[in-house]
Amino acid sequence: MISRILAADLPGHVGERVTIAGWLHRRRELKSVTFLIVRDRSGLAQVVLSGPVPAVEDATQADGDMLADGGALTEETVIAVEGTVTANQQAPGGAEITSPVITRLSGPAQPPPFDLYRPTLTAGLPTILDHSPTTLRHPLLRAGFEIAAASVAGFRDTLTGLGFTEVYTPKIVESATESGANVFGIDYFGRPAYLAQSPQFYKQALVGVFERVFEVGPAFRAEPHDTARHLAQYTSLDAELGFIADHQDVMTVLREVIAGMVAGAREESRSAVDLLGLTLPAVPGQIPQIHFADAQELMAAQMGEDPRGEKDLAPAHERWLCEWAMREYRSEFLFVTGFPAVAKPFYTHPDPARPGYTNGFDLLFRGLELVTGGQRLHRHADYLAALADLGEDPAPYAGYLQVFEHGMPPHGGFAIGLERWTARLTGAANVRQVTLFPRDLHRLSP
Amino acid sequence: MISRILAADLPGHVGERVTIAGWLHRRRELKSVTFLIVRDRSGLAQVVLSGPVPAVEDATQADGDMLADGGALTEETVIAVEGTVTANQQAPGGAEITSPVITRLSGPAQPPPFDLYRPTLTAGLPTILDHSPTTLRHPLLRAGFEIAAASVAGFRDTLTGLGFTEVYTPKIVESATESGANVFGIDYFGRPAYLAQSPQFYKQALVGVFERVFEVGPAFRAEPHDTARHLAQYTSLDAELGFIADHQDVMTVLREVIAGMVAGAREESRSAVDLLGLTLPAVPGQIPQIHFADAQELMAAQMGEDPRGEKDLAPAHERWLCEWAMREYRSEFLFVTGFPAVAKPFYTHPDPARPGYTNGFDLLFRGLELVTGGQRLHRHADYLAALADLGEDPAPYAGYLQVFEHGMPPHGGFAIGLERWTARLTGAANVRQVTLFPRDLHRLSP
Repeated sequence: MISRILAADLPGHVGERVTIAGWLHRRRELKSVTFLIVRDRSGLAQVVLSGPVPAVEDATQADGDMLADGGALTEETVIAVEGTVTANQQAPGGAEITSPVITRLSGPAQPPPFDLYRPTLTAGLPTILDHSPTTLRHPLLRAGFEIAAASVAGFRDTLTGLGFTEVYTPKIVESATESGANVFGIDYFGRPAYLAQSPQFYKQALVGVFERVFEVGPAFRAEPHDTARHLAQYTSLDAELGFIADHQDVMTVLREVIAGMVAGAREESRSAVDLLGLTLPAVPGQIPQIHFADAQELMAAQMGEDPRGEKDLAPAHERWLCEWAMREYRSEFLFVTGFPAVAKPFYTHPDPARPGYTNGFDLLFRGLELVTGGQRLHRHADYLAALADLGEDPAPYAGYLQVFEHGMPPHGGFAIGLERWTARLTGAANVRQVTLFPRDLHRLSP
Repeated sequence: MISRILAADLPGHVGERVTIAGWLHRRRELKSVTFLIVRDRSGLAQVVLSGPVPAVEDATQADGDMLADGGALTEETVIAVEGTVTANQQAPGGAEITSPVITRLSGPAQPPPFDLYRPTLTAGLPTILDHSPTTLRHPLLRAGFEIAAASVAGFRDTLTGLGFTEVYTPKIVESATESGANVFGIDYFGRPAYLAQSPQFYKQALVGVFERVFEVGPAFRAEPHDTARHLAQYTSLDAELGFIADHQDVMTVLREVIAGMVAGAREESRSAVDLLGLTLPAVPGQIPQIHFADAQELMAAQMGEDPRGEKDLAPAHERWLCEWAMREYRSEFLFVTGFPAVAKPFYTHPDPARPGYTNGFDLLFRGLELVTGGQRLHRHADYLAALADLGEDPAPYAGYLQVFEHGMPPHGGFAIGLERWTARLTGAANVRQVTLFPRDLHRLSP
């Protein structure tokens, strides 16, 4: 391994001779001094040279073409710098490298399409996404993905601690009905097949095996919408658990998971959170909740608009309810429970005490639905009845329905869209900003 | 949540009145006593009843159909049992439940297609897979997936500890050439697209962003082979890291990862390992290695067959080399380095000191290739030259090649097939036994 220390560790080595390595983030040539800013995975380091930037040696491979290009040191060139760590309050982290000896670790870079050293990338989002392999190197863009990774670690750690087993389920499925509308078709050895919209049926089946399961994996939706929050592929954080009394047990676990994700982001991506200047949400010990019907009554009385009779929440209602929860409970999170049956999938368990309503819920966060979940049906006869109510032929569901013929406990679960979570946490206006190489109606590359 | 303790925790509650819950794994009615075996996620518990199995109450939902079925207690019915924990050396774990009160948590189960309580499932693999949602409940089948999950946790923990960032990359790609042969075609909003065979190009691009990345995700191969080790979808454990000297650095990280996976399996799935009676491999501090050319010389001298001139290892060679490593080094692992360029993908870095050979390697384990990896090219000009050597048009690779125009450090990585790993660890003869709902040439459900 190239022997080096990271930029962030320089302050602990003042007075020592060290080597750092990374990308030449910026070169600033002043009259008698040159500053090179080197970027590595930990952050930025300042290197001070007297005089202009020298031509440098290429050290890696004995491939005979060293210095054939004259040893250029353009921005984004990968270099190693050996030098003396010197305290300087003006430098990032309070230390810089002086008396440097610079080595080039790969050929000179073409000038990148954007100045990655500027505080923000000023190009439009489509242009930024066209050049993702380079623009993702910008510290502000990169920070969102560090927060995403830390959040997923929090998701996993929380559920593993609660006895959940991680699973990996098929993303190619036989039946479009198992996946709902807007599915991608695929040629499967000459047979039609589809990309899975969610692991819903598999995670339910696996409750019969492991009782408690989760999956972090891609979900595919052929969304014909070109909006700031629709993706053709997103990362779904799914969980499902058995032996519940009802949906309230699912919500209890979800509250732990959300708290774990926020803690993960806070602890494991602290520098990214600081760089973006984020205020992470406080997760109440008990997230406040309101029944769908009560939410409609409340809005009818206070919102200046009467949503009663509607079967789902409109975006304006989600926003208003979040503002209400903040006023009423000082909470950025709000559970809405008891959605009408028509607003939830057919496998949603009805509320035994309130005909027409279900044990399905949404978790709202900062004005938007963040998580959807609920208690599911668990009896075979109830599935047959639910499909009959919809006028659906049970035959295409045979693979799914066999699960419930052989003993399934009361169970439920939820799914969190990772990109939507990260967008809410970072304040990204468009979910594509926090998606690595997004796929949408128009975009299939890079 | 249903208030209960787990079967495995019974021995700590002798003398107490507790509730357990799970599936009725087996009922054995003797002349004057009945044994019920209850299975939950932790294992089995024995319940002792005097007399025959009673009709039992159905406790969960006030849906009016309680006991309409007569309270049958067939195998796989989900029940809760309240009773007294009593020491008994003959019972699983040394404790059983006496004086039980049984409640049914869901309707009676249909008799499962197999007796899940028998030591092994005797049906053929296709039949077992057709009934996966039920057959996976068999403790021996389930155990493999616990070991898989624990191995992945070890993979992740090791890499996170080494400063790697977890990423999620697109599984729908624009160009079949980016994915090699045997790709699945997909209708992407009316345009042709393909399922990704690996995250290779994305993980390389992300070395430019995070230096060290890993991904756990599905990979898709339209394999026209119907063998014991081919799957149409498998779970790929991918890692890639920059700032290496050469492939030896990648192998050093891989050794840590393998050790972490074995430790994960040992520590986090101990009961599954014990149930399957497995001997987990010892991972040498330094895994022995042999150069491809030296391996051929060795086989020519000792194997009774002369493979010199062949460009890759045949399965018989892999087996022989593993036996040799065991004899020579007492190691179940062996690195073969320096594969010929024709045996490795075009992005494999050549060995600067040995024309025709590369810095690509395989890790062999128990007679088979387990991991493939290597140092990659990192200079733009080298990619153009490699494609030109193959007579390939660089145009379809434009999205990939842009990464290398803007400064990439020397880097490399590897990919581990999770199902192959688990099959080797558990001794499964067919990789489908350790795949949840496998997909292959003939199988698309359940």
